[in-house]
Amino acid sequence: MIYRPLRMAIPSAEQRTAVIDLGSNSFRLVVFSAADGWWKRTDEIYEAVRIGAGLGETGELGKEPMERALQTIDVFAHFCRALGIDDVRPVATSAIRDARNGRAFARRARETTGLPVRVLSTSQEALYGHLAAVNSTTLADGAVLDLGGGSLQLVRVRERRPNDLSSWPLGAVRMTERFLPGDRPSRKQLKALRSHVAEELGSAPWLASAGERIVGIGGTVRNLAAAAQHLAGQPHIGVQGFRITREGLGELVERLASLPAEERGQVPGIKASRGDLILAGAVVVQTVLETGGFEAIEATEAGLREGVFFESMLPGPDHLFEDVRRESVMNLAAQYRVDEAHTAHVASLALGLFDQLAREGLHPGDPEERELLWAACVLHDIGMSVDYDDHHKHTRYLVLNAGLPGFAPEEVALIAQAARYHRKGLPDLGDLAPLAGPGDDARLDRLACLLRLAEDLERPRDQSVRRADVQVHNGSVRLDLIASEGVEVARWAAERETELFRRAFGRGLEVAT
Amino acid sequence: MIYRPLRMAIPSAEQRTAVIDLGSNSFRLVVFSAADGWWKRTDEIYEAVRIGAGLGETGELGKEPMERALQTIDVFAHFCRALGIDDVRPVATSAIRDARNGRAFARRARETTGLPVRVLSTSQEALYGHLAAVNSTTLADGAVLDLGGGSLQLVRVRERRPNDLSSWPLGAVRMTERFLPGDRPSRKQLKALRSHVAEELGSAPWLASAGERIVGIGGTVRNLAAAAQHLAGQPHIGVQGFRITREGLGELVERLASLPAEERGQVPGIKASRGDLILAGAVVVQTVLETGGFEAIEATEAGLREGVFFESMLPGPDHLFEDVRRESVMNLAAQYRVDEAHTAHVASLALGLFDQLAREGLHPGDPEERELLWAACVLHDIGMSVDYDDHHKHTRYLVLNAGLPGFAPEEVALIAQAARYHRKGLPDLGDLAPLAGPGDDARLDRLACLLRLAEDLERPRDQSVRRADVQVHNGSVRLDLIASEGVEVARWAAERETELFRRAFGRGLEVAT
Repeated sequence: MIYRPLRMAIPSAEQRTAVIDLGSNSFRLVVFSAADGWWKRTDEIYEAVRIGAGLGETGELGKEPMERALQTIDVFAHFCRALGIDDVRPVATSAIRDARNGRAFARRARETTGLPVRVLSTSQEALYGHLAAVNSTTLADGAVLDLGGGSLQLVRVRERRPNDLSSWPLGAVRMTERFLPGDRPSRKQLKALRSHVAEELGSAPWLASAGERIVGIGGTVRNLAAAAQHLAGQPHIGVQGFRITREGLGELVERLASLPAEERGQVPGIKASRGDLILAGAVVVQTVLETGGFEAIEATEAGLREGVFFESMLPGPDHLFEDVRRESVMNLAAQYRVDEAHTAHVASLALGLFDQLAREGLHPGDPEERELLWAACVLHDIGMSVDYDDHHKHTRYLVLNAGLPGFAPEEVALIAQAARYHRKGLPDLGDLAPLAGPGDDARLDRLACLLRLAEDLERPRDQSVRRADVQVHNGSVRLDLIASEGVEVARWAAERETELFRRAFGRGLEVAT
Repeated sequence: MIYRPLRMAIPSAEQRTAVIDLGSNSFRLVVFSAADGWWKRTDEIYEAVRIGAGLGETGELGKEPMERALQTIDVFAHFCRALGIDDVRPVATSAIRDARNGRAFARRARETTGLPVRVLSTSQEALYGHLAAVNSTTLADGAVLDLGGGSLQLVRVRERRPNDLSSWPLGAVRMTERFLPGDRPSRKQLKALRSHVAEELGSAPWLASAGERIVGIGGTVRNLAAAAQHLAGQPHIGVQGFRITREGLGELVERLASLPAEERGQVPGIKASRGDLILAGAVVVQTVLETGGFEAIEATEAGLREGVFFESMLPGPDHLFEDVRRESVMNLAAQYRVDEAHTAHVASLALGLFDQLAREGLHPGDPEERELLWAACVLHDIGMSVDYDDHHKHTRYLVLNAGLPGFAPEEVALIAQAARYHRKGLPDLGDLAPLAGPGDDARLDRLACLLRLAEDLERPRDQSVRRADVQVHNGSVRLDLIASEGVEVARWAAERETELFRRAFGRGLEVAT
């Protein structure tokens, strides 16, 4: 073989969509790319335009803010043209919608930059929030909360579809200005804010019967989730899927209320720029949970921009992923060059062992654990895209960093750790242990053991071991390999797992042919 | 755009080579894959066969070790067939070469497994070591040391070609057995070992005039390098390119000699399984450095197996990379889906600024710094293959983990940190600071600043800003952009770098058109 001159791999044709979010405080352009089997964010630019500055007093967009805004939109337009992105979707929300001269401004922006700026109604905005939430979590029945600077939107969700939509001018900026203007709010001020929110929410009687789950989008919820993770001493693997309990939120509100405004931004998890707004936002969220009888709110990192993108990417009329968890796993796998025939076969062997061992009464056979096993099998090799050496550790890094929408953080941790131990070593949750619930150590042993056995049986990566039949004899488990070729390699590899197998299933292991 | 059904990206055709290393202690199969522009290790299997067990006493391979060995070679053969690898290169070294029945064993292995087992002569083995060393470091003139369990090989290198080859039975196992058999060696025993090695080395008079540099391959050198890194309190980013100074090695030898054999394997950096052999190995290396007058030995992670692979991959007769450093950077970049037109243009803009600012006397214009800048530019976006969010941090992770043969650890750290700061934040060496030499903080500021400015100018990723001309006016630097399109985006982006530019070059920055 001759080494050929260097030439870069040419990326396969990707379809790109630019979503431009013209918000009250900042303008943001996000590029999403999609190709066969995967999609992800691939670029982002940002400018703190503050087009809403002064709007509260005058009801109009100011002259200088509009000039800054037009310049930024013009930069964004040049950016899209330079990148050759034809599918550009600019949407304007609260400030431009609410200002008396907002529509005129949008028209001017369209004329001068050529971008088709669309001013969203409150219900359009709420629907994009709904799309973002149900496509990034497993929410089927319940509610979606979207709390911005200007407004609060709530959507009732039934069988994943939007049912009722409500919107109130209860955004974190407005509530701060109106109820908590000073540096140290009094109990009375906080109470007044709470009463006001509760009273306003009365116009959505559906809230009390919406169901048990509520998903929250927006910066306030993300910051509160990060702060709650810190308070609970949990590792920081992103807030996607994190549940802020009502109790945890209560503690946070107490803590934030005890601090002067400028110190709130130093609470770990809260961004400095949000320090002045976070308390009012937290109280609004808290009041929604109380009014609706929700025990917790689940954070998601997706939001308006993802909603706009999902509308463009997913077929209508619903624009929903069929199965968010499956989609997350396949999306992540497809972003790396994994050998699909291999990982699919490892998954099939592992799930076969899982089912048979459950039938023999050697473990509970929990369907959620089965899904985690499948995910770990599909993803176990993605770290090879970093380096072959330590690729099990790289897989862990990639899974934890990219995240898996639809899975809770403790589930992502189990998937990542199972993959981490797919080659050697005795499984351990390590620094992810604070995420673990009861039984998670044993669960990780089973996940890692079955993934590893399946990987051993498929060590030649040729799918020649078609099946492994489980037999229990004299308290020991025998695997009979059904294969189209010799099983020397598979057997040689699988025989190394007796120690881990005993720990996971309390039995000896034999590999027969 | 419609989201299409999931289908995995099909990896482009890769050419695979399996190198099988039948060593005295363990057998190892490594699969190397190569495609246009990149190569890497993609699989590895390992069995501790210990075919050399008992060889010392009898001069022959034992019956049981041979059976174990044949079984393992058979598993390896099945593995290669299952993976469809036709290019299989099994080589046998010391134990099989030295045993009276070694050739007969190799014949039997060929007949029963069909693998073309080749018994390497000492000089063939030394030549593969040479190939590994000169293709993974910048060694041009000097020596290569390869210390195994049985033998020591030294190759004199002139203009990257092998010149003199010498081999001695001075391996770590042999020297331990002969000179340091007990648990706590006496000064006298150590002295006897040293004298013996020095006397043997007398047969290579070329050693004293070989030059200033020596590169070491093999597990002893890698372990010593890791231990020296630990002692120096350096971060563990691999031993590739690490220089063990004569002084540092002296301290290590003192430390190891003061411990009983079993505790030597607990010294951080030394593998437990090597604890009993490391002291003799360290003394052999130390004596080579003294005899040859070398101030330090540079570790490389490449070895015999890489040598065999390079012979297959690189065109003969020399099988040398033209430029190891360039090759490492291009190889790593090609393993990820980077936008080559973009990164090449970022590099061109950054190097243009580097050269002009040096001409204006605003920095030293060091050619090595220039090469680091080029590398950081080429690699800055590879982290996007992990996730767009925090891709600057992912690039750092990928660079540090994969390593860049040809660069010293402190250079890899600068490349990784410059890429880490290619978007925002004030550059800082962080936990890599212990690697830094004098002036590295300022160097990092310049690297990150120029990479960032170039990235800003090429923010639209369309190469429309063809050049930036530097003018110094009234103590301030003005960039005149020469562009084929409007420069709104580039200027908008570059204007954000004034603070960092002032820190790096002590001047103000203006962007004109």
